[in-house]
Amino acid sequence: MAELNKIVILGAGNVATHLSKAFAGSGFQILQIYNRSIEPAKKLAKTTGSDFTDKIENITDEADLYVIATSDNAIEEIAMNLNKFQSMVVHTSGSVSMDILKPASPRTGVFYPLQTFSKKRKVNYKTVPLCLEASTESDLMLLKKLADSISQNVYAVDSGKRMVLHMAAVFACNFTNFLYDIAGTMVHEVGLDFDILRPLIRETAEKVMKMEPSEAQTGPAKRNDEIIMHQHISLLEENEILSLLYEFMSNEISKLHHGSV
Amino acid sequence: MAELNKIVILGAGNVATHLSKAFAGSGFQILQIYNRSIEPAKKLAKTTGSDFTDKIENITDEADLYVIATSDNAIEEIAMNLNKFQSMVVHTSGSVSMDILKPASPRTGVFYPLQTFSKKRKVNYKTVPLCLEASTESDLMLLKKLADSISQNVYAVDSGKRMVLHMAAVFACNFTNFLYDIAGTMVHEVGLDFDILRPLIRETAEKVMKMEPSEAQTGPAKRNDEIIMHQHISLLEENEILSLLYEFMSNEISKLHHGSV
Repeated sequence: MAELNKIVILGAGNVATHLSKAFAGSGFQILQIYNRSIEPAKKLAKTTGSDFTDKIENITDEADLYVIATSDNAIEEIAMNLNKFQSMVVHTSGSVSMDILKPASPRTGVFYPLQTFSKKRKVNYKTVPLCLEASTESDLMLLKKLADSISQNVYAVDSGKRMVLHMAAVFACNFTNFLYDIAGTMVHEVGLDFDILRPLIRETAEKVMKMEPSEAQTGPAKRNDEIIMHQHISLLEENEILSLLYEFMSNEISKLHHGSV
Repeated sequence: MAELNKIVILGAGNVATHLSKAFAGSGFQILQIYNRSIEPAKKLAKTTGSDFTDKIENITDEADLYVIATSDNAIEEIAMNLNKFQSMVVHTSGSVSMDILKPASPRTGVFYPLQTFSKKRKVNYKTVPLCLEASTESDLMLLKKLADSISQNVYAVDSGKRMVLHMAAVFACNFTNFLYDIAGTMVHEVGLDFDILRPLIRETAEKVMKMEPSEAQTGPAKRNDEIIMHQHISLLEENEILSLLYEFMSNEISKLHHGSV
Protein backbone atom coordinates (compact mmCIF):
# COMPACT_ATOMS: atom_id res chain seq x y z
CA MET A 1 0.00 0.00 0.00
CA ALA A 2 1.16 3.50 -0.87
CA GLU A 3 2.77 5.38 1.97
CA LEU A 4 1.62 8.82 3.06
CA ASN A 5 4.44 10.93 1.67
CA LYS A 6 2.71 13.83 -0.05
CA ILE A 7 0.58 15.91 2.30
CA VAL A 8 -1.79 18.86 2.00
CA ILE A 9 -2.43 20.88 5.17
CA LEU A 10 -5.76 22.69 5.47
CA GLY A 11 -5.43 25.49 7.99
CA ALA A 12 -2.58 27.74 9.06
CA GLY A 13 -3.21 28.23 12.78
CA ASN A 14 -1.22 26.90 15.75
CA VAL A 15 -1.87 23.18 15.18
CA ALA A 16 -1.38 23.42 11.39
CA THR A 17 1.85 25.38 11.82
CA HIS A 18 3.52 23.10 14.35
CA LEU A 19 2.39 19.94 12.54
CA SER A 20 3.51 21.14 9.09
CA LYS A 21 6.93 21.97 10.43
CA ALA A 22 7.20 18.56 12.10
CA PHE A 23 6.23 16.77 8.85
CA ALA A 24 8.56 18.88 6.71
CA GLY A 25 11.36 18.43 9.26
CA SER A 26 11.01 14.64 8.99
CA GLY A 27 11.28 14.66 5.19
CA PHE A 28 7.62 14.55 4.20
CA GLN A 29 6.53 16.69 1.30
CA ILE A 30 3.95 19.35 2.16
CA LEU A 31 2.53 19.93 -1.33
CA GLN A 32 0.22 22.76 -0.41
CA ILE A 33 -1.16 24.86 2.44
CA TYR A 34 -4.79 25.91 2.16
CA ASN A 35 -6.22 28.65 4.35
CA ARG A 36 -9.34 30.79 3.90
CA SER A 37 -7.24 33.92 4.32
CA ILE A 38 -4.17 33.90 2.17
CA GLU A 39 -1.50 35.60 4.29
CA PRO A 40 -1.10 32.91 7.00
CA ALA A 41 -1.06 30.24 4.25
CA LYS A 42 1.67 32.11 2.40
CA LYS A 43 3.72 32.57 5.55
CA LEU A 44 3.51 28.92 6.57
CA ALA A 45 4.10 27.69 2.98
CA LYS A 46 7.33 29.64 2.94
CA THR A 47 8.71 27.72 5.93
CA THR A 48 7.72 24.33 4.51
CA GLY A 49 8.58 25.00 0.85
CA SER A 50 4.98 24.44 -0.23
CA ASP A 51 2.47 25.82 -2.67
CA PHE A 52 -0.44 27.73 -1.07
CA THR A 53 -4.01 28.74 -1.84
CA ASP A 54 -7.09 30.35 -0.32
CA LYS A 55 -9.46 28.67 -2.84
CA ILE A 56 -10.71 25.25 -1.88
CA GLU A 57 -11.37 24.41 -5.57
CA ASN A 58 -7.64 24.91 -6.25
CA ILE A 59 -6.52 22.24 -3.82
CA THR A 60 -4.30 19.75 -5.59
CA ASP A 61 -5.53 16.17 -6.01
CA GLU A 62 -2.01 14.77 -5.91
CA ALA A 63 -1.62 14.29 -2.17
CA ASP A 64 -1.69 10.97 -0.30
CA LEU A 65 -3.11 12.65 2.79
CA TYR A 66 -5.25 15.72 3.48
CA VAL A 67 -4.96 17.04 7.04
CA ILE A 68 -7.75 19.38 8.15
CA ALA A 69 -6.11 21.32 10.99
CA THR A 70 -8.64 24.13 11.35
CA SER A 71 -10.95 25.18 14.16
CA ASP A 72 -13.59 22.53 14.90
CA ASN A 73 -16.47 24.42 13.34
CA ALA A 74 -14.73 24.71 9.95
CA ILE A 75 -14.03 20.98 9.54
CA GLU A 76 -17.41 19.96 8.15
CA GLU A 77 -17.57 22.56 5.41
CA ILE A 78 -14.03 21.79 4.27
CA ALA A 79 -14.80 18.06 4.27
CA MET A 80 -17.82 18.66 1.99
CA ASN A 81 -15.59 20.47 -0.50
CA LEU A 82 -12.90 17.80 -0.60
CA ASN A 83 -15.27 15.15 -1.96
CA LYS A 84 -13.55 14.85 -5.32
CA PHE A 85 -10.63 12.97 -3.75
CA GLN A 86 -9.99 9.31 -3.01
CA SER A 87 -6.98 9.90 -0.75
CA MET A 88 -7.10 9.71 3.02
CA VAL A 89 -8.61 12.71 4.85
CA VAL A 90 -7.99 13.27 8.56
CA HIS A 91 -8.73 16.02 11.04
CA THR A 92 -6.72 17.00 14.12
CA SER A 93 -9.51 17.76 16.58
CA GLY A 94 -9.89 16.29 20.06
CA SER A 95 -13.64 16.67 20.12
CA VAL A 96 -15.04 16.05 16.65
CA SER A 97 -16.10 12.57 15.55
CA MET A 98 -14.27 10.95 12.66
CA ASP A 99 -17.65 10.50 10.92
CA ILE A 100 -17.82 14.17 10.03
CA LEU A 101 -15.25 13.43 7.33
CA LYS A 102 -17.42 10.89 5.47
CA PRO A 103 -18.40 13.35 2.69
CA ALA A 104 -14.72 13.96 1.95
CA SER A 105 -13.49 10.44 1.30
CA PRO A 106 -14.19 6.77 1.99
CA ARG A 107 -10.80 6.79 3.76
CA THR A 108 -11.04 8.88 6.93
CA GLY A 109 -9.05 9.26 10.11
CA VAL A 110 -8.02 11.43 13.02
CA PHE A 111 -4.54 12.69 13.87
CA TYR A 112 -4.96 14.45 17.23
CA PRO A 113 -1.87 15.98 18.83
CA LEU A 114 -2.49 16.21 22.60
CA GLN A 115 -0.54 19.34 23.37
CA THR A 116 -1.04 23.07 24.03
CA PHE A 117 0.34 25.07 21.12
CA SER A 118 1.08 28.77 20.98
CA LYS A 119 2.53 30.40 17.88
CA LYS A 120 5.27 32.13 19.87
CA ARG A 121 6.57 28.95 21.43
CA LYS A 122 8.57 26.15 19.83
CA VAL A 123 7.41 22.64 20.65
CA ASN A 124 9.53 19.50 20.58
CA TYR A 125 7.18 17.35 18.49
CA LYS A 126 9.02 14.14 19.42
CA THR A 127 7.34 14.28 22.84
CA VAL A 128 3.83 15.21 21.66
CA PRO A 129 1.32 12.36 22.15
CA LEU A 130 -0.39 11.67 18.81
CA CYS A 131 -3.80 10.01 19.10
CA LEU A 132 -4.79 8.19 15.94
CA GLU A 133 -7.99 6.75 14.54
CA ALA A 134 -8.81 5.50 11.04
CA SER A 135 -11.81 3.97 9.29
CA THR A 136 -9.81 0.86 8.31
CA GLU A 137 -7.07 -1.12 9.99
CA SER A 138 -4.73 -0.64 7.02
CA ASP A 139 -5.17 3.14 7.08
CA LEU A 140 -4.51 3.13 10.82
CA MET A 141 -1.21 1.39 10.10
CA LEU A 142 -0.32 4.02 7.49
CA LEU A 143 -1.14 6.84 9.92
CA LYS A 144 0.85 5.10 12.63
CA LYS A 145 3.90 4.90 10.38
CA LEU A 146 3.60 8.60 9.61
CA ALA A 147 3.07 9.50 13.28
CA ASP A 148 6.01 7.35 14.43
CA SER A 149 8.34 9.37 12.25
CA ILE A 150 7.52 12.65 14.02
CA SER A 151 6.72 11.54 17.59
CA GLN A 152 7.77 8.93 20.13
CA ASN A 153 4.32 8.89 21.77
CA VAL A 154 1.76 7.42 19.40
CA TYR A 155 -1.58 6.00 20.61
CA ALA A 156 -4.63 4.49 18.93
CA VAL A 157 -7.64 6.27 20.45
CA ASP A 158 -11.19 5.97 19.09
CA SER A 159 -13.61 8.91 18.86
CA GLY A 160 -15.39 8.18 22.16
CA LYS A 161 -12.17 7.87 24.16
CA ARG A 162 -10.68 10.87 22.38
CA MET A 163 -13.50 13.10 23.62
CA VAL A 164 -12.88 12.01 27.22
CA LEU A 165 -9.15 12.52 26.70
CA HIS A 166 -9.75 16.02 25.37
CA MET A 167 -11.90 16.80 28.40
CA ALA A 168 -9.15 15.47 30.70
CA ALA A 169 -6.73 17.77 28.87
CA VAL A 170 -9.00 20.74 29.64
CA PHE A 171 -8.61 19.95 33.35
CA ALA A 172 -4.87 19.19 33.20
CA CYS A 173 -3.94 22.12 30.96
CA ASN A 174 -6.56 24.85 30.54
CA PHE A 175 -7.90 24.82 34.10
CA THR A 176 -4.39 24.38 35.50
CA ASN A 177 -3.21 27.44 33.59
CA PHE A 178 -6.16 29.35 34.99
CA LEU A 179 -5.05 28.40 38.52
CA TYR A 180 -1.61 29.81 37.65
CA ASP A 181 -3.37 32.99 36.57
CA ILE A 182 -5.33 33.24 39.82
CA ALA A 183 -2.18 32.66 41.88
CA GLY A 184 -0.31 35.27 39.83
CA THR A 185 -3.02 37.84 40.48
CA MET A 186 -2.82 37.14 44.21
CA VAL A 187 0.92 37.69 44.43
CA HIS A 188 0.70 40.82 42.25
CA GLU A 189 -1.84 42.23 44.68
CA VAL A 190 0.74 42.16 47.48
CA GLY A 191 3.48 43.60 45.28
CA LEU A 192 5.30 40.37 44.46
CA ASP A 193 6.20 39.16 40.98
CA PHE A 194 4.91 36.01 39.26
CA ASP A 195 8.57 34.89 39.17
CA ILE A 196 8.33 33.88 42.82
CA LEU A 197 5.80 31.16 41.86
CA ARG A 198 7.58 29.82 38.77
CA PRO A 199 9.89 27.27 40.48
CA LEU A 200 6.92 25.88 42.42
CA ILE A 201 4.82 25.56 39.24
CA ARG A 202 7.63 23.77 37.43
CA GLU A 203 8.30 21.39 40.33
CA THR A 204 4.56 20.62 40.74
CA ALA A 205 4.50 19.45 37.11
CA GLU A 206 7.88 17.69 37.26
CA LYS A 207 6.83 15.69 40.32
CA VAL A 208 4.06 13.94 38.39
CA MET A 209 6.42 13.01 35.55
CA LYS A 210 7.50 10.15 37.81
CA MET A 211 4.89 9.97 40.57
CA GLU A 212 1.12 9.57 40.42
CA PRO A 213 -0.74 12.81 41.29
CA SER A 214 -2.43 11.24 44.33
CA GLU A 215 1.01 10.36 45.70
CA ALA A 216 2.38 13.85 44.91
CA GLN A 217 -0.46 15.73 46.65
CA THR A 218 0.65 18.11 49.42
CA GLY A 219 -0.89 21.10 51.19
CA PRO A 220 -3.36 22.03 53.92
CA ALA A 221 -6.33 20.10 52.47
CA LYS A 222 -4.24 16.95 52.10
CA ARG A 223 -3.08 17.32 55.73
CA ASN A 224 -6.60 18.33 56.81
CA ASP A 225 -5.06 21.42 58.39
CA GLU A 226 -8.20 23.35 59.29
CA ILE A 227 -6.40 26.31 60.85
CA ILE A 228 -4.63 27.16 57.60
CA MET A 229 -7.70 26.52 55.48
CA HIS A 230 -9.74 28.90 57.65
CA GLN A 231 -6.98 31.48 57.47
CA HIS A 232 -7.00 31.29 53.66
CA ILE A 233 -10.77 31.45 53.43
CA SER A 234 -10.79 34.55 55.62
CA LEU A 235 -8.09 36.12 53.44
CA LEU A 236 -10.41 35.46 50.47
CA GLU A 237 -13.47 36.78 52.27
CA GLU A 238 -14.05 39.65 49.86
CA ASN A 239 -13.75 37.50 46.77
CA GLU A 240 -16.77 35.21 46.65
CA ILE A 241 -15.62 33.36 43.52
CA LEU A 242 -12.21 32.47 44.91
CA SER A 243 -13.56 31.53 48.36
CA LEU A 244 -15.98 29.16 46.67
CA LEU A 245 -13.24 27.65 44.55
CA TYR A 246 -10.94 27.31 47.57
CA GLU A 247 -13.58 25.53 49.65
CA PHE A 248 -14.64 23.31 46.78
CA MET A 249 -11.13 22.15 45.90
CA SER A 250 -10.11 21.71 49.55
CA ASN A 251 -13.23 19.67 50.34
CA GLU A 252 -12.60 17.39 47.38
CA ILE A 253 -8.93 16.89 48.25
CA SER A 254 -9.85 16.13 51.87
CA LYS A 255 -12.54 13.69 50.78
CA LEU A 256 -10.15 11.90 48.45
CA HIS A 257 -7.35 11.62 51.00
CA HIS A 258 -9.35 11.21 54.23
CA GLY A 259 -12.67 9.79 53.08
CA SER A 260 -14.65 12.70 54.55
CA VAL A 261 -14.45 16.46 55.09
CA MET B 1 28.20 40.75 63.54
CA ALA B 2 28.60 36.99 63.91
CA GLU B 3 27.59 35.02 60.87
CA LEU B 4 25.10 32.17 61.02
CA ASN B 5 27.45 29.23 60.67
CA LYS B 6 26.34 26.79 63.33
CA ILE B 7 22.77 25.64 62.94
CA VAL B 8 20.31 23.47 64.87
CA ILE B 9 17.37 22.04 62.93
CA LEU B 10 14.16 21.28 64.84
CA GLY B 11 12.10 18.76 62.91
CA ALA B 12 12.98 15.92 60.55
CA GLY B 13 10.16 15.99 58.00
CA ASN B 14 10.28 16.99 54.33
CA VAL B 15 11.17 20.65 54.82
CA ALA B 16 13.72 19.92 57.56
CA THR B 17 15.35 17.19 55.49
CA HIS B 18 15.75 19.14 52.25
CA LEU B 19 16.86 22.29 54.08
CA SER B 20 19.41 20.49 56.28
CA LYS B 21 20.96 18.85 53.26
CA ALA B 22 21.13 22.20 51.44
CA PHE B 23 22.85 23.85 54.43
CA ALA B 24 25.27 20.97 54.94
CA GLY B 25 25.99 20.85 51.20
CA SER B 26 26.97 24.54 51.27
CA GLY B 27 29.41 24.05 54.13
CA PHE B 28 27.30 25.11 57.10
CA GLN B 29 27.58 23.10 60.25
CA ILE B 30 24.39 21.38 61.36
CA LEU B 31 25.22 20.90 65.03
CA GLN B 32 22.13 18.96 65.95
CA ILE B 33 18.80 17.61 64.71
CA TYR B 34 15.93 17.61 67.18
CA ASN B 35 12.76 15.62 66.53
CA ARG B 36 10.08 14.42 68.94
CA SER B 37 10.52 10.87 67.65
CA ILE B 38 14.14 9.79 67.57
CA GLU B 39 14.38 7.63 64.44
CA PRO B 40 13.84 10.36 61.79
CA ALA B 41 16.26 12.63 63.70
CA LYS B 42 18.87 9.88 63.73
CA LYS B 43 18.42 9.17 60.04
CA LEU B 44 18.70 12.80 59.00
CA ALA B 45 21.61 13.46 61.39
CA LYS B 46 23.52 10.67 59.70
CA THR B 47 23.34 12.41 56.31
CA THR B 48 24.39 15.79 57.71
CA GLY B 49 27.04 14.55 60.17
CA SER B 50 25.12 16.00 63.14
CA ASP B 51 24.27 15.16 66.70
CA PHE B 52 20.61 14.31 67.31
CA THR B 53 18.11 14.28 70.17
CA ASP B 54 14.42 13.79 70.94
CA LYS B 55 14.61 15.78 74.19
CA ILE B 56 14.09 19.49 73.86
CA GLU B 57 16.02 20.12 77.10
CA ASN B 58 19.07 18.54 75.48
CA ILE B 59 19.25 21.01 72.63
CA THR B 60 22.68 22.59 72.48
CA ASP B 61 23.03 26.30 73.23
CA GLU B 62 26.03 26.64 70.91
CA ALA B 63 24.21 27.36 67.65
CA ASP B 64 24.00 30.74 65.88
CA LEU B 65 20.62 29.83 64.43
CA TYR B 66 17.72 27.59 65.45
CA VAL B 67 15.44 26.59 62.56
CA ILE B 68 12.01 25.27 63.57
CA ALA B 69 11.02 23.23 60.53
CA THR B 70 8.12 21.29 62.00
CA SER B 71 4.41 21.23 61.24
CA ASP B 72 2.73 24.58 61.96
CA ASN B 73 0.96 23.43 65.09
CA ALA B 74 4.20 22.33 66.79
CA ILE B 75 6.02 25.65 66.33
CA GLU B 76 4.59 27.46 69.36
CA GLU B 77 5.36 24.74 71.89
CA ILE B 78 8.91 24.37 70.62
CA ALA B 79 9.40 28.14 70.72
CA MET B 80 8.33 28.21 74.39
CA ASN B 81 10.96 25.63 75.22
CA LEU B 82 13.78 27.40 73.44
CA ASN B 83 13.54 30.46 75.68
CA LYS B 84 16.92 29.94 77.32
CA PHE B 85 18.74 31.05 74.15
CA GLN B 86 19.84 34.42 72.83
CA SER B 87 20.59 33.22 69.30
CA MET B 88 18.31 33.81 66.34
CA VAL B 89 15.24 31.57 66.07
CA VAL B 90 13.35 31.20 62.80
CA HIS B 91 10.52 29.03 61.53
CA THR B 92 9.91 27.82 57.97
CA SER B 93 6.15 28.12 57.74
CA GLY B 94 4.21 29.98 55.05
CA SER B 95 1.24 30.69 57.27
CA VAL B 96 2.45 31.33 60.80
CA SER B 97 3.28 34.84 61.96
CA MET B 98 6.84 35.59 63.03
CA ASP B 99 5.47 36.83 66.38
CA ILE B 100 4.82 33.29 67.56
CA LEU B 101 8.58 33.00 68.12
CA LYS B 102 8.77 35.86 70.65
CA PRO B 103 8.97 33.55 73.69
CA ALA B 104 12.01 31.84 72.15
CA SER B 105 14.33 34.78 71.60
CA PRO B 106 14.45 38.54 71.11
CA ARG B 107 15.92 37.74 67.67
CA THR B 108 13.28 36.10 65.49
CA GLY B 109 12.76 35.48 61.80
CA VAL B 110 11.20 33.40 59.08
CA PHE B 111 12.94 31.29 56.46
CA TYR B 112 10.13 30.05 54.20
CA PRO B 113 11.05 27.87 51.21
CA LEU B 114 8.28 28.18 48.62
CA GLN B 115 8.41 24.71 47.15
CA THR B 116 6.59 21.36 47.28
CA PHE B 117 8.78 18.78 48.97
CA SER B 118 8.38 15.02 48.99
CA LYS B 119 10.83 12.76 50.77
CA LYS B 120 11.22 10.53 47.72
CA ARG B 121 12.19 13.35 45.38
CA LYS B 122 15.43 15.29 45.21
CA VAL B 123 15.06 19.07 44.91
CA ASN B 124 17.60 21.45 43.40
CA TYR B 125 17.69 23.96 46.25
CA LYS B 126 19.43 26.59 44.11
CA THR B 127 16.08 27.25 42.39
CA VAL B 128 13.88 27.26 45.51
CA PRO B 129 12.52 30.74 46.35
CA LEU B 130 13.41 31.56 49.95
CA CYS B 131 11.15 34.13 51.60
CA LEU B 132 12.81 35.85 54.53
CA GLU B 133 11.64 38.00 57.40
CA ALA B 134 13.45 39.09 60.58
CA SER B 135 12.68 41.23 63.59
CA THR B 136 15.64 43.52 62.90
CA GLU B 137 17.28 44.81 59.72
CA SER B 138 20.66 43.41 60.75
CA ASP B 139 19.23 39.93 61.34
CA LEU B 140 17.50 40.12 57.95
CA MET B 141 20.92 40.76 56.39
CA LEU B 142 22.37 37.74 58.19
CA LEU B 143 19.51 35.53 57.03
CA LYS B 144 19.89 36.88 53.50
CA LYS B 145 23.57 35.99 53.45
CA LEU B 146 22.75 32.47 54.61
CA ALA B 147 19.91 32.12 52.07
CA ASP B 148 22.04 33.45 49.20
CA SER B 149 24.52 30.67 49.74
CA ILE B 150 21.94 27.93 49.16
CA SER B 151 19.52 29.56 46.67
CA GLN B 152 19.53 32.01 43.78
CA ASN B 153 15.97 33.17 44.52
CA VAL B 154 15.88 35.07 47.79
CA TYR B 155 13.06 37.47 48.68
CA ALA B 156 12.20 39.63 51.69
CA VAL B 157 8.51 38.92 52.45
CA ASP B 158 6.74 40.09 55.62
CA SER B 159 4.23 37.94 57.54
CA GLY B 160 1.13 39.45 55.87
CA LYS B 161 2.44 39.03 52.34
CA ARG B 162 3.77 35.59 53.15
CA MET B 163 0.29 34.36 54.08
CA VAL B 164 -1.07 35.57 50.73
CA LEU B 165 1.88 33.98 48.98
CA HIS B 166 1.24 30.68 50.73
CA MET B 167 -2.41 30.84 49.66
CA ALA B 168 -1.34 31.55 46.07
CA ALA B 169 0.92 28.50 46.31
CA VAL B 170 -2.07 26.38 47.33
CA PHE B 171 -3.78 27.37 44.06
CA ALA B 172 -0.65 27.03 41.89
CA CYS B 173 0.56 23.77 43.40
CA ASN B 174 -1.94 21.86 45.56
CA PHE B 175 -5.06 22.60 43.51
CA THR B 176 -3.13 22.16 40.26
CA ASN B 177 -1.97 18.73 41.38
CA PHE B 178 -5.56 17.87 42.21
CA LEU B 179 -6.56 18.79 38.63
CA TYR B 180 -3.84 16.39 37.41
CA ASP B 181 -5.42 13.75 39.63
CA ILE B 182 -8.92 14.37 38.22
CA ALA B 183 -7.59 14.24 34.65
CA GLY B 184 -5.72 11.03 35.41
CA THR B 185 -8.86 9.39 36.77
CA MET B 186 -10.74 10.36 33.59
CA VAL B 187 -8.21 8.80 31.24
CA HIS B 188 -7.96 5.67 33.40
CA GLU B 189 -11.72 5.28 33.12
CA VAL B 190 -11.43 4.89 29.34
CA GLY B 191 -8.47 2.52 29.59
CA LEU B 192 -5.70 5.02 28.87
CA ASP B 193 -2.61 5.58 30.99
CA PHE B 194 -1.66 8.79 32.84
CA ASP B 195 1.45 8.81 30.62
CA ILE B 196 -0.61 10.20 27.75
CA LEU B 197 -1.17 13.42 29.77
CA ARG B 198 2.38 13.89 31.02
CA PRO B 199 3.83 15.85 28.05
CA LEU B 200 0.83 18.20 28.15
CA ILE B 201 1.23 18.79 31.90
CA ARG B 202 4.93 19.53 31.50
CA GLU B 203 4.38 21.90 28.56
CA THR B 204 1.55 23.72 30.38
CA ALA B 205 3.98 24.51 33.21
CA GLU B 206 6.94 25.26 30.91
CA LYS B 207 4.88 27.76 28.90
CA VAL B 208 4.44 30.01 31.94
CA MET B 209 8.17 29.96 32.70
CA LYS B 210 8.44 32.61 29.97
CA MET B 211 4.89 33.79 29.31
CA GLU B 212 2.26 35.22 31.64
CA PRO B 213 -0.57 32.73 32.36
CA SER B 214 -3.20 34.99 30.79
CA GLU B 215 -1.19 34.98 27.56
CA ALA B 216 -0.67 31.19 27.73
CA GLN B 217 -4.36 30.37 28.21
CA THR B 218 -5.85 28.05 25.57
CA GLY B 219 -8.92 25.80 25.36
CA PRO B 220 -12.67 25.87 24.74
CA ALA B 221 -13.48 28.41 27.48
CA LYS B 222 -10.80 30.80 26.22
CA ARG B 223 -12.22 30.46 22.67
CA ASN B 224 -15.77 30.61 24.02
CA ASP B 225 -16.43 27.36 22.14
CA GLU B 226 -19.88 26.49 23.47
CA ILE B 227 -20.31 23.31 21.44
CA ILE B 228 -17.26 21.69 23.05
CA MET B 229 -18.13 22.97 26.52
CA HIS B 230 -21.63 21.47 26.25
CA GLN B 231 -20.15 18.22 24.98
CA HIS B 232 -17.85 18.04 28.01
CA ILE B 233 -20.60 18.93 30.46
CA SER B 234 -22.80 16.20 29.03
CA LEU B 235 -19.90 13.72 29.30
CA LEU B 236 -19.70 14.70 32.97
CA GLU B 237 -23.45 14.46 33.51
CA GLU B 238 -23.24 11.66 36.02
CA ASN B 239 -20.60 13.35 38.11
CA GLU B 240 -22.14 16.36 39.80
CA ILE B 241 -18.90 17.51 41.42
CA LEU B 242 -16.90 17.53 38.20
CA SER B 243 -19.71 19.14 36.16
CA LEU B 244 -19.87 21.93 38.73
CA LEU B 245 -16.12 22.40 38.65
CA TYR B 246 -16.08 22.36 34.83
CA GLU B 247 -18.79 25.00 34.58
CA PHE B 248 -17.26 27.14 37.28
CA MET B 249 -13.77 27.18 35.78
CA SER B 250 -15.05 27.66 32.24
CA ASN B 251 -17.29 30.58 33.26
CA GLU B 252 -14.41 32.28 35.03
CA ILE B 253 -12.02 31.81 32.10
CA SER B 254 -14.66 33.14 29.68
CA LYS B 255 -15.35 36.12 31.93
CA LEU B 256 -11.66 36.93 32.19
CA HIS B 257 -10.99 36.66 28.46
CA HIS B 258 -14.30 37.92 27.05
CA GLY B 259 -15.71 40.10 29.79
CA SER B 260 -18.91 38.04 30.07
CA VAL B 261 -20.11 34.42 29.89
